[in-house]
Amino acid sequence: MPLPDEQIFPHATAEAEKTVAKHKAPQDLIFYSGWFCPFVQRTWISLEEKGIPYQYVEVNPYKKEAHFLAINPKGLVPAVEFKGKALYESLILCEFLEDAFPSHKPHLLPADPTERALERMWLDHLSKTFVPGFHRLLSAQEPDKQRAAREELYESLRKFTNNIKGPFFLGDEFSLCDVAIAPWIVRDWVLEEHRGYKRADVSAKWQQYAARVENRPSVVNTSSLREHLVEIYGRYLRDEAQSQAAIAMRAGRVIP
Amino acid sequence: MPLPDEQIFPHATAEAEKTVAKHKAPQDLIFYSGWFCPFVQRTWISLEEKGIPYQYVEVNPYKKEAHFLAINPKGLVPAVEFKGKALYESLILCEFLEDAFPSHKPHLLPADPTERALERMWLDHLSKTFVPGFHRLLSAQEPDKQRAAREELYESLRKFTNNIKGPFFLGDEFSLCDVAIAPWIVRDWVLEEHRGYKRADVSAKWQQYAARVENRPSVVNTSSLREHLVEIYGRYLRDEAQSQAAIAMRAGRVIP
Repeated sequence: MPLPDEQIFPHATAEAEKTVAKHKAPQDLIFYSGWFCPFVQRTWISLEEKGIPYQYVEVNPYKKEAHFLAINPKGLVPAVEFKGKALYESLILCEFLEDAFPSHKPHLLPADPTERALERMWLDHLSKTFVPGFHRLLSAQEPDKQRAAREELYESLRKFTNNIKGPFFLGDEFSLCDVAIAPWIVRDWVLEEHRGYKRADVSAKWQQYAARVENRPSVVNTSSLREHLVEIYGRYLRDEAQSQAAIAMRAGRVIP
Repeated sequence: MPLPDEQIFPHATAEAEKTVAKHKAPQDLIFYSGWFCPFVQRTWISLEEKGIPYQYVEVNPYKKEAHFLAINPKGLVPAVEFKGKALYESLILCEFLEDAFPSHKPHLLPADPTERALERMWLDHLSKTFVPGFHRLLSAQEPDKQRAAREELYESLRKFTNNIKGPFFLGDEFSLCDVAIAPWIVRDWVLEEHRGYKRADVSAKWQQYAARVENRPSVVNTSSLREHLVEIYGRYLRDEAQSQAAIAMRAGRVIP
């Protein structure tokens, strides 16, 4: 019997579907995607921001096909195939796009080494506290665990928000911290509808920043309809999801 | 009553002590260190490999002093103070040294963007499987849990080892993957003496590689006597350590 997650809606919708349609032709860079995955969306936003030519290939990571596993034994999306090599890990891919396409703007990392290190420290903050915190709240079942998870998430977001220069994280320039958090901003309605989360309860600054990020064209153009995400998030809300991230979180392990 | 970890031996010994003695003078780059900490040693090895001028400052992270917390509210070592800004996170610091001192060789990351991404993917492998696996085995109490943790660690190491080009990870050049794993190679005698770990049981290739890395001058020159590490590791072996890493691991959380 297939795992329930194999029944995922098969393709992107809304603005994301239009973006996919523009990226069907073969290119040197192949982008292996899952339209619904927030980690995928990070890499996708970077590709769109920088106007890098890419070929979009949809993969169902729960039903891994042989050609995909051959280039990417870990089987995770997002993945990029470039000059015959397979690369993965969302933020590593974003940094790769900076390194491999240096003439494509905007540059998503500051040029100054100290500012660059600070940006990476905030990315690390998001990876270690915000992303696991979001999934912990999503899958928390008992009201007291939900309350504790919500407060922990708010604390992580307030630390981040206090360091936003505005309008975006580094100021006028859209940068990798904005890219890295955007997919969860686009999806935080799930927490609002089911887990008592409210943007305004984090802070007014967070509420304004989140609205700016979700309206950024690269974010809009890589986002699909909520109605197809509902069935995926339903599994997380019942703590039944079978993604590698969900399984790792339940075991108290690092998201792979 | 002070936490037991506050009683840590106060300074580096052996070759590391000689290295500290050469780095007492004020410099633009201040390196906040804890002589015993494997994460610290990563940054220290990078500084030594690249011959970057730095001022060494010993910090007891369990007894955080006001001047240290003022520049580094997270209170973790390793930390670097550079032009008035505090930076931390061991691998981010290593990348910072590459970016801020581009004329200092060796370059610890490949210049080619694809090779650079692959190197970062292996760093990610070490961060997500090897480092938590080492600490999981160290603190495992029951024999069956120790056996399972040992097998998991071996599996992580075999994946890494299969990709070593030799003599070092990328070939002749010492690179960031070698830097990142070296501090745990230097400390794996703890697992050998107390947890049934043997380098040869991973593979002959691992055994040879580990010997090469632990004899690298930058690794030798940042290593202290085992006898002062024994008291620290005793706490881990009894699962009583109070470091942030140890507390996070017990709670099934990401190492901060």
